[in-house]
Amino acid sequence: MIPLNNIPKTSMKSIYLHDPNIIKCRAAVTWGVNKPFSIEEVEVAPPKVNEIRIKMVATGICRTDDHGMKGKLENSYFPIILGHEGAGIVESIGEGVERFKPGDKVIPLCLPQCGQCICCNDPRTNICIVASTDNRRGLMADGTSRYTCKGKQIYNFFHTSTFSEYIVVEEIAATKIDNNAPLDNVSLIGCGFTTGYGAALNTAKVHPGSTCAVFGLGCVGLAAVMGCKAAGASRIIGVDINKDKFDLAKELGATECINPKDYDKTIEQVLQEKTGGGLDYVFECVGNTNTMVAAIKSSHFAFGTTVIVGVSDKNETITIDPMIFLTGRKMASSILGGLRVKDAIPKLVTAYMEKKVDVGKLVTHRLPFEEINKGFDLLQSGKSIRTVLLF
Amino acid sequence: MIPLNNIPKTSMKSIYLHDPNIIKCRAAVTWGVNKPFSIEEVEVAPPKVNEIRIKMVATGICRTDDHGMKGKLENSYFPIILGHEGAGIVESIGEGVERFKPGDKVIPLCLPQCGQCICCNDPRTNICIVASTDNRRGLMADGTSRYTCKGKQIYNFFHTSTFSEYIVVEEIAATKIDNNAPLDNVSLIGCGFTTGYGAALNTAKVHPGSTCAVFGLGCVGLAAVMGCKAAGASRIIGVDINKDKFDLAKELGATECINPKDYDKTIEQVLQEKTGGGLDYVFECVGNTNTMVAAIKSSHFAFGTTVIVGVSDKNETITIDPMIFLTGRKMASSILGGLRVKDAIPKLVTAYMEKKVDVGKLVTHRLPFEEINKGFDLLQSGKSIRTVLLF
Repeated sequence: MIPLNNIPKTSMKSIYLHDPNIIKCRAAVTWGVNKPFSIEEVEVAPPKVNEIRIKMVATGICRTDDHGMKGKLENSYFPIILGHEGAGIVESIGEGVERFKPGDKVIPLCLPQCGQCICCNDPRTNICIVASTDNRRGLMADGTSRYTCKGKQIYNFFHTSTFSEYIVVEEIAATKIDNNAPLDNVSLIGCGFTTGYGAALNTAKVHPGSTCAVFGLGCVGLAAVMGCKAAGASRIIGVDINKDKFDLAKELGATECINPKDYDKTIEQVLQEKTGGGLDYVFECVGNTNTMVAAIKSSHFAFGTTVIVGVSDKNETITIDPMIFLTGRKMASSILGGLRVKDAIPKLVTAYMEKKVDVGKLVTHRLPFEEINKGFDLLQSGKSIRTVLLF
Repeated sequence: MIPLNNIPKTSMKSIYLHDPNIIKCRAAVTWGVNKPFSIEEVEVAPPKVNEIRIKMVATGICRTDDHGMKGKLENSYFPIILGHEGAGIVESIGEGVERFKPGDKVIPLCLPQCGQCICCNDPRTNICIVASTDNRRGLMADGTSRYTCKGKQIYNFFHTSTFSEYIVVEEIAATKIDNNAPLDNVSLIGCGFTTGYGAALNTAKVHPGSTCAVFGLGCVGLAAVMGCKAAGASRIIGVDINKDKFDLAKELGATECINPKDYDKTIEQVLQEKTGGGLDYVFECVGNTNTMVAAIKSSHFAFGTTVIVGVSDKNETITIDPMIFLTGRKMASSILGGLRVKDAIPKLVTAYMEKKVDVGKLVTHRLPFEEINKGFDLLQSGKSIRTVLLF
C-alpha cells in the first residue's frame, strides 16, 4: 500500500506519490520520417495528475510502428518515440491515480477508455472519442509531452510509446494484469494478439463449423487463425505470399495454406472454387487496399462477412461495387478486436496463464532493446512473426 | 377447393388445373434500352409445373423499373416486360402447385425463396441463390419464357413482370395475402415499402431514442422514415434536393427535413454539426454512389451505421478510405429490407389491414395501366412518390 498520509503537502501543481524525479533512460527516438531508430538518452518527466510512469519490460514490434516510422499514419508527429504494444511495471503514480500503485504489472493501452464519453458509454464501440488519437495529437491530455531529448520535445505514439525504458501514460491508458504474468509473451496482448483474436471471436463472431480465410499470416493474422479455431471453425484457410509462415499457421489452427502466387487465377476465384462459392468469414490482416477488395470478393454471396483488420496507408482508398453488399455480403472492421481492452486484456492474460491461448507461439524472435533496428529488418523482410524487444 | 379428382389424366408434360389456354392480354413491352413502354397484345402461356398465372390488379412504378428500362441493371434482357411490385389474383395453377389456388390474392416476389438452397437455409440472408436473378436470366426455371409478342419471346424482370394484365411466376415467386386486402395500396409491400421499412427495423435495427437520417425521400426513403418512427427514433432527418417531398416526410415521421442545396457545406458537415458528431443510423435510398459516401461520412464516428438501400447503376463504384470503418463506422446493405418476403409480406399486409402501417400514404398517384408512360414521367420528374397503375 502507498503511505498516503506521509506525503508532504506542497504547492506543486502535481504531487507525486513516488519518485518525483525526472528519469534519464534509453529510448528509441525516430527523428523524422523513414529515419532509423536512434537509441538516445531521453528525459522522462514524472507523471502528472491522473498519469502513471511505467518501467517497460518488453515491447513487441508491430506493423503499425513501421507505418508510423514511414509517416503512413495520420497521427505520427516527429520526433517521436514509437511502440504501442508492451508490458511493464508501474514505477510511480501521479495525483488522483487510484487504480494503480507502484509495482503493479500493467499493459499500456493504445486504445484508452476514458469511461465518460459518449463512446465509452455506448456498447456499440470500443473507441473512446475523448482519448482517440487525433484528439491528443501525440501529447498528453494537458497538451504537453513527458519526453525530451537533446532539448527537444518528443511526441508519443498512440498514448503509449513503448520503445522507451520508462514511459508516462494517462491512467486511462493502462490496465493492470496478473502479477505473475511473464511480460515478454503477454506484451503481445497489448495489440497484435488481441486485434486478430478479437476480430474472429468478437467482431465476426465466427460460428462453429464455419469456413474462414485469413489473408496475411503475420502476428495479427495468426491470432485471427487462433480465434477462428477457438470458435470452432471447420475450415481455416491461411493466405500469404510467404510460404515460410505456413508451418506455424497450421500449428495454430489453419487447416490449409495457400500462396496466391501459385495460381494463374485471382485469389478470390481460387477461394470461391475451393469453398463452393466463397467463405463464411474472411479476415484481411495485411492492410493492403487491393487485398481488402479481394477479401470481400472471397466471401460468400448473400451471407459472407469480411473483417478488415489491417491498417492501410493514409489516403489510400478501396473502390468497390456497392451491389456486392446489396446482394448480401457484409463488411465489418475493428481496432483491437472491437474489445474494450481495459477489461479484455486482463482476461486474455489470465487465459494465457491458464494455458487457454498460447500467445507465446507468436513470438519468433527476442532481441535486446538496443537491437530494435534489427527487429524492424526482421519485420520488413517477413522473417519474423513477432519480435519482442527486452529492456 | 379444386376438384382434383375430376381432372382428366393426360400425357401432357404439364397439366393445368384451371384454364389451360394461352391468354391474350395487354402488357407494357419495352422493346429495347430507353424505349418507351409500348402497350401491346401479348400471349401469356399457361403455367407449367410449379408455376402460377396471376391476373394483375395493381402495380407500382419503382425506380428499379426505370433503371431496368434504361439498361442500368445487369439483369435486363430485351425485349422485356418490366415491373416487379404488384398485387393480383391467382388465375390458374400448374402441376405440383400446392400453396395456391385460383382466386387467392397474392403478391409476386421479386426476391423468391426456393426454400431448399444453401441461402434459404441460412438465417443470415434473405437472398435465394437458386432463384437469384442472374441464375434465371429473365426466363423461367426451365429456361423458357411464358410471354410472346408479335412472334418474339419476351423476357421477364425479377421473376415477376408486373406490367402485364396476366403474368406467370414460379410458385416460389409469390406469396398469399389476406383476401380482404385492397390490392392497389398493398402492391407497394411487394417492393418499395418493405425495402425501406425493413431496412430501418430489420437491417439497421434502429433503437429507441436514436438519431436517423434518410437520404432520398421517395417511396423507399419515406418507408424508411416510417420504419425509424416505428422503432422509436427520437430524431429523423429527411434529406432531399426536392423540397416538395418534405411535407409528406414530416407527416410520416421526419422530425425535420433539409435540402443539401441550401448549404455551402457538404451534407455530411451539415449533418455532423446538427447532431454533435453524426447520426446513429443513415439510410441511403437514392442509389447514387456519391450520396452513399456522403451517407457513410454522416454517420457517427465509432458507432454510426449506414444502410445502403438504393440500387446504383451497374459498373458504378464507391471509393472510400477503409479507416472510416476501422474507426468504428459500420456499413450494412439489404434488398427488401433483409426480410424473407414469403413470410414477411403477408405479415406486413396484415399490419396494414390493422392500420398499423399506412402504406396508402405513399401512393400519390393512381393511373389506368395504359398511362404507364405518364407514370414514368411523374417518377422521373420527381412529382410522384409512388404511382400505382390499375388494370
